[in-house]
Amino acid sequence: MIAWNNLDTLNSYKKMLSLTGQVRLSAVLDAARVKNYAVPMAGGLVYNYAAKQVNEPILTVLQELSNEQQLVEKYQALLDGDVVNTGESRKVLHQLARGQLGKDVVFEGKNLRSFYAEQQDKIAAFAKKVHSGEIKGSKGDKFTTVCQIGIGGSDLGPRALYLAMEQWARVEGKQKMTARFISNVDPDDASAVIAGVDLAKTLFILVSKSGTTQETLSNELFVKEFIRKAGLDPTKHMIAVTSETSPLANNPSYLASFYMDDFIGGRYSSSSAVGGAILSLAFGPETFADFLSGAHEADKSALESDIRKNPALLDALIGVYERNALGYPSTAILPYSQALSRLPAHLQQTDMESNGKQVNRRGEKVDYATGPVLLGEPGTNGQHSFYQLLHQGTDVVPLQFIGFVEGQSGDDIVVDGSTSQKKLCANLSAQIVAFAKGKQDANPNKNFPGERPSSLIYGKKLTPKTLGALLAHYENKIMFQGFVWNLNSFDQEGVQLGKVLTKKVLSGEMDDTLKAYASIFSI
Amino acid sequence: MIAWNNLDTLNSYKKMLSLTGQVRLSAVLDAARVKNYAVPMAGGLVYNYAAKQVNEPILTVLQELSNEQQLVEKYQALLDGDVVNTGESRKVLHQLARGQLGKDVVFEGKNLRSFYAEQQDKIAAFAKKVHSGEIKGSKGDKFTTVCQIGIGGSDLGPRALYLAMEQWARVEGKQKMTARFISNVDPDDASAVIAGVDLAKTLFILVSKSGTTQETLSNELFVKEFIRKAGLDPTKHMIAVTSETSPLANNPSYLASFYMDDFIGGRYSSSSAVGGAILSLAFGPETFADFLSGAHEADKSALESDIRKNPALLDALIGVYERNALGYPSTAILPYSQALSRLPAHLQQTDMESNGKQVNRRGEKVDYATGPVLLGEPGTNGQHSFYQLLHQGTDVVPLQFIGFVEGQSGDDIVVDGSTSQKKLCANLSAQIVAFAKGKQDANPNKNFPGERPSSLIYGKKLTPKTLGALLAHYENKIMFQGFVWNLNSFDQEGVQLGKVLTKKVLSGEMDDTLKAYASIFSI
Repeated sequence: MIAWNNLDTLNSYKKMLSLTGQVRLSAVLDAARVKNYAVPMAGGLVYNYAAKQVNEPILTVLQELSNEQQLVEKYQALLDGDVVNTGESRKVLHQLARGQLGKDVVFEGKNLRSFYAEQQDKIAAFAKKVHSGEIKGSKGDKFTTVCQIGIGGSDLGPRALYLAMEQWARVEGKQKMTARFISNVDPDDASAVIAGVDLAKTLFILVSKSGTTQETLSNELFVKEFIRKAGLDPTKHMIAVTSETSPLANNPSYLASFYMDDFIGGRYSSSSAVGGAILSLAFGPETFADFLSGAHEADKSALESDIRKNPALLDALIGVYERNALGYPSTAILPYSQALSRLPAHLQQTDMESNGKQVNRRGEKVDYATGPVLLGEPGTNGQHSFYQLLHQGTDVVPLQFIGFVEGQSGDDIVVDGSTSQKKLCANLSAQIVAFAKGKQDANPNKNFPGERPSSLIYGKKLTPKTLGALLAHYENKIMFQGFVWNLNSFDQEGVQLGKVLTKKVLSGEMDDTLKAYASIFSI
Repeated sequence: MIAWNNLDTLNSYKKMLSLTGQVRLSAVLDAARVKNYAVPMAGGLVYNYAAKQVNEPILTVLQELSNEQQLVEKYQALLDGDVVNTGESRKVLHQLARGQLGKDVVFEGKNLRSFYAEQQDKIAAFAKKVHSGEIKGSKGDKFTTVCQIGIGGSDLGPRALYLAMEQWARVEGKQKMTARFISNVDPDDASAVIAGVDLAKTLFILVSKSGTTQETLSNELFVKEFIRKAGLDPTKHMIAVTSETSPLANNPSYLASFYMDDFIGGRYSSSSAVGGAILSLAFGPETFADFLSGAHEADKSALESDIRKNPALLDALIGVYERNALGYPSTAILPYSQALSRLPAHLQQTDMESNGKQVNRRGEKVDYATGPVLLGEPGTNGQHSFYQLLHQGTDVVPLQFIGFVEGQSGDDIVVDGSTSQKKLCANLSAQIVAFAKGKQDANPNKNFPGERPSSLIYGKKLTPKTLGALLAHYENKIMFQGFVWNLNSFDQEGVQLGKVLTKKVLSGEMDDTLKAYASIFSI
C-alpha cells in the first residue's frame, strides 16, 4: 500500500537533518573514493558522486528515506498507469512512450503503449516519404528544412536534443534535414527564422497539445502569412502534433497530424510525437528509435531499489540532502560538451516547473524547501563566466558536471602536446578537484575555500542512445525528488495566473494597476 | 577623501537591516506607484521599480547608504583613472572607451581616451575596406562572414550584442556581414562553425587580451588548419584583437591588429576593440558608434548622487537590499525581447564574475552575502519553463523584466484582435502584477502567494543606442554593488586554481585524486 506522506513526517528525514558537517571533501576525496562512489547508468554512462558531501552513514539514511517514502514503489505505480498527476486526474506516461515496464495501460479501451508506438510508426513512415521526396513542397521542392513551432515543452526539449545530435548526425551521415525553431510570441523570433530559410523547401511542425497555446497559434498564422506571400500553399507546408481532442486534430489545414495525449506532460514530451516528429525528420526515425532505447534502458535502471545501484534515485536523494539538510538554494548543470549547450535550459524547465511548488499532492502547504533554482552553461565557457562565484562566492552552489571521452565531430588538433578534447576533459577533471579541495593561500584573495560539492556524469561519446539515457536520468531524478517532497511534479498551476491576467490586458478588462503597466506598452 | 569600508561597518547598513517586512506589494502596488516609482534612463529607457519591496523610509536609508559608502565619489575616482582594481594594480577604464567623463587619464605618457578612440578609428577604416571589397580573402572573394574566436569576455558580450542588433540591422539595411562565434575548447564547437561557413569568404577575429588564453589559441590553430586545407592563406583570413604587450601584437600572422589594454577587463570589453571589431564589421562602424553613445549617456547618468534620479545606482541598492536585508540568494533577468536572448548569459558573467567574492578589496574575508546567482531566459519562453517556481516555489527570486513597445523586425500579425507584439507586452505586464499581487484561492494548489518583487526596464524600441545604454546600466549597477560590498569587482582570482590544476593534468604532474578523474577521460 502506497502512502503519500510529507517529507517532514518521515523518521529518516529527521535523521538526515542531523547528519551534516560530517564530510570534509578536502580530507576524504581520494582516488579510492573516485573509484568506489560510482554507479553505472544506462547507455554506458556512469554517475560518479565522489565529490558529493555524503558518506556511508548519510547514504544509509538516504536509503532509509527512499524506502520509507516508497520511492521505487511510487515509480512502479506510475508505470502501471496509476493516476499520479492527481491535481489534473491524469496518468503520467512519458516513460511508456519509450517502452513497457509495468502493467498494460489501457484508457477508454485503448492500449496506450500501442497508441504511442503507432504514432512513432506513422511518423517514421511520413519522415521516410519526406526524405525520399515522395512528399514535397507545394511548388515541387524537396523539403530540406524542418521548423518546429511550439513553446515550453514543445520547444526546449526538442531544441536541446536537436542541438545535441546535430554534429553527430553530420559526421555520421545521418542529417536528413536542418531544423529550426520558433517559440516566442515576440514577432521578431518568427521573423528572423523565416528570413533565414527557403520557405519553398521548409516543412513546419505545429506543436500544441491543447491546440490553444496563444504563442503557438499566433506563430502559426504568422508563418502561414509568409508561406502564402511566397506563393506557396500552407496546407502543404505544415504538419501538426497535438492531442486527438484538440481543434488541431484531423484538420485538413495540415499535411499530416500526429498525436500524443494528456498523459504526457509538455516538459516530458520529447519522447512522444513532440520530439519524435522533428527528430525523425531531421535525423531519420532510426536515430529517434536509438534515442528512445537509451531512455527506456534508463527507465528500467530506475526501478532498482538499492540507491547505490540506481543512479537517478541516488542523484535525486543527494539533491534532496543538499537542499533540505545542507540548505543550498540553487544547483548548476555544467556539460563539458558544446552539443549539450541547451540541456541546462531544458532542465531548468523540467526541474523548476515540476518541483518549484509549495503545496503537496493533496494541495496542502509544505514546511520545507522544494525544487532549487537551476542554472548552467557549457564548460569550458562557464569557467570564463560565472565560475568565479561558484569558487569564491559567499554561497555554495552544488554542481553536476557532464563529460565524454570523445567528441562528436572527430575533428581535433594537437596544441602544446594535447588535443582540444583532452584539454576539455582536463579542465573538467581539474574543476571537480578545485571545487572540492580548494587551496589554502596566505593571500585570502587567492584562497579557495573548497568544500563545493559536485557530481559527474560521463561516458565514451554522446550518441542518440546516451542522450536518451541522459534525458531519462534527469526526468526520473526529478520524479523521485517530487515523490520525496510529496509534490505533484506533473501539473503547473503556477503558470495560470499570468495567462488569466494577460487575457484581461488584451480584452481591456484591467484594473488600474494592470492598466498602468499595459499603458507603458501603449496597450 | 574616499574610505573603502566594509558594508557592515556602516550605520546605514544596520538601519537597512531593520527595515524589512514593511512593504506588502499586494497592498501598495497601484497605478500611482507605477507612475511615481520610475526613473528615466539613458537612451530613452525607463527604470520602473514600483513592484519592488521598497518604500520612502527604505529609499531614504538606501540614499544614506549610498552617501555613507561614497558610491558616486568612488565612481568618479574610477573615471578619473584611480587604481580601483587594487588586486591587480590596474585602473578600470571601460567607461573611458565610450567617452570622457573625468580627468584625462594618462599612462606611460599616453592619453588613454585618445588611444581607445584611435583604435575605434582604425577599426572603422578597416571595416570600410572590408565592406567595399578593398580587403578580400586570399582567393579574391569578398568577405561576407566574420567569425570571432574568443571565450568569456571575448565571447559572451559581443555575441549577446550581435544577436541583439542582428534583426534591427537586417531590417534597417545595416547588416554588412554575418557573424559567427567560436569559444569552447570542445573541438565540436569550432568544427560545427567551420562546417557552416564558406571559409573563402570568412574573416576570423582572434581575441585574447593576454594572447595566452588556452581555448582561444587552440581554436586559432584549429581554424587555421581548416583554412590551409581549403587552399587559403591564414594570414589573409585573420585579424587579432589583443593588448600591445601580448605575443599576438604586431604579428605578421594577422592581416591587422587592434588593441585594448589591461585597464579594460574581459567582461567589460564589449565597448573596446573586443566588441568594436566584430560589431563594426557586422553592422558598420556607425552602428557601433551609436551603441557607444548610448553607453556613454548611461555612464553620465550614473554620476547623479540622488539615488531616485540615478537608475544604475538605485537598481544596485535595491539589489543589495534584497540580497542583504531580505536574504534572497538569486535573481533573474527576463527580457521580453528575443533579440536579448543571450543578455542573461552575458550578465551571468558580468555580475557573478565581478561580485561572486568573499574577500574585500584589501583581501579580508567579509561577513555578509555578496553577488547573487543570476539566471534568465527571454519571455514569453520562460513563462512556459521555470516561471512555475518563480510563482509558487518555496524561495523568492527577485526579477527584472525588460520590454519594448515595438519589435525590431516590423513584421507582425493580428490574431484574436491583437498583434504578437501586443501579446508579448500584455504578458509582461500581467506577469509583473501576478508576481507582485498573487491571487488568493481556496485551493492552495491554485493559490499564488504574490509578494515576489520585480523591476522593469522599458523603452520604445531596442536600437544600438538603447542597447548601449542597457549594457552600461548593468555594468554600472554591478560596479556600484561592488562598491557597496567593498569588493574588487574587476579581478577574478577564482578562475586561477582551475587553470593551475588543468596544467597539472595536461603535464602529467597530478596527484592521485586528479589522476583518478583524468583517467576517466583516458588522460
